[in-house]
Amino acid sequence: MEKKIITISREFGSGGRTVGRMVAERLGIPFYDKELVDQIALESGFAPKFVEENGEHSPGSSLFSYAFAHQGIPGVMNGLSTADFLWNIQCSVILQLAEKGPCVIVGRNADYILKDRQDALHVYVFADIPFRADRIVRRYGESDKSPEARLQEKDKRRRVNYQHYTGRNWGQSQNYDVCLDTGVLGIQQCVDIICGIVERSKTEMTPEEKNL
Amino acid sequence: MEKKIITISREFGSGGRTVGRMVAERLGIPFYDKELVDQIALESGFAPKFVEENGEHSPGSSLFSYAFAHQGIPGVMNGLSTADFLWNIQCSVILQLAEKGPCVIVGRNADYILKDRQDALHVYVFADIPFRADRIVRRYGESDKSPEARLQEKDKRRRVNYQHYTGRNWGQSQNYDVCLDTGVLGIQQCVDIICGIVERSKTEMTPEEKNL
Repeated sequence: MEKKIITISREFGSGGRTVGRMVAERLGIPFYDKELVDQIALESGFAPKFVEENGEHSPGSSLFSYAFAHQGIPGVMNGLSTADFLWNIQCSVILQLAEKGPCVIVGRNADYILKDRQDALHVYVFADIPFRADRIVRRYGESDKSPEARLQEKDKRRRVNYQHYTGRNWGQSQNYDVCLDTGVLGIQQCVDIICGIVERSKTEMTPEEKNL
Repeated sequence: MEKKIITISREFGSGGRTVGRMVAERLGIPFYDKELVDQIALESGFAPKFVEENGEHSPGSSLFSYAFAHQGIPGVMNGLSTADFLWNIQCSVILQLAEKGPCVIVGRNADYILKDRQDALHVYVFADIPFRADRIVRRYGESDKSPEARLQEKDKRRRVNYQHYTGRNWGQSQNYDVCLDTGVLGIQQCVDIICGIVERSKTEMTPEEKNL
């Protein structure tokens, strides 16, 4: 089955977004990351910054646990918590984007939301703490928290969100088709492997190739 | 860092052993699977069949929980349980084999035992239940248990053994460098990806290739 939709789930700082962007450029297909946030914001009525900060985070975390007054039409959230409301919109937007045609989607539990699409390739990208700590400092600069603490906090929020909405264990290999350590393999090679898999999926495998 | 040692951890029926054998043949390096069992048997004094059946299994499972009378010199187990004794020998044999030179090692928690070797590439191979159920019936024939029950039982024993001796979660992507679904990618392609990674590791990556 030809793989047309590529979902990339990633540990913070692993370079998963860069991998996704490069794969999309190489394959000449749309890359949904910031665009996804904007679309969810548009459909939910929340500010893009709010969606960006909370869409992959623990439903019980920080401000997110408060009952926000929705900015749009009263009653539009149908009694759902802000987190659940955002999750529903996120599912709907991701399903629609996948329907539109080939694309790369980064984050937002897209692997789970599109798990039933046979034409989707689900990738998990990770790396060890030193690689990621070095990378986030070079990319996003220093902050008053240590890079390690920033990684742990962000990973924890993504993990809790994933578990809450999918019932699955974040980073468990069986949830994906391929998992790649960017620290060991390098980002360029991860892009090559993913594009190679997509290319190969265009021709049907022989029974021997599939299952020797 | 050139990858010279390849460890393959695998779900039962996923074709991980076949992947390992084909990688070893392609690279022209030794393949340790049955040979590993024989060496552990030789060093432990246990029968190869006993090592094969218990070396990757839950330390508390079935007959294995009984205090076996060791077949060799009395007192040779130094007060260790049979499982712990076998684990110690297994660690020692795997560390020695890796010292001898390039090789492929299948199973037996070799990913954990060789986790500190920078020249080791750790691969996890898995597939969904239908793919594996079909494969074990074609490979090993029918039995009075359903293929699904056989898979679950064997996976559970490997998982419990792994967790007991490594403190890590079996199949968690971060324990490996690359995880591959043979059901989706096909066994031939998994072999190609692993051999491609080994080949590429022979030339130093540029900083751009590593971390764009």
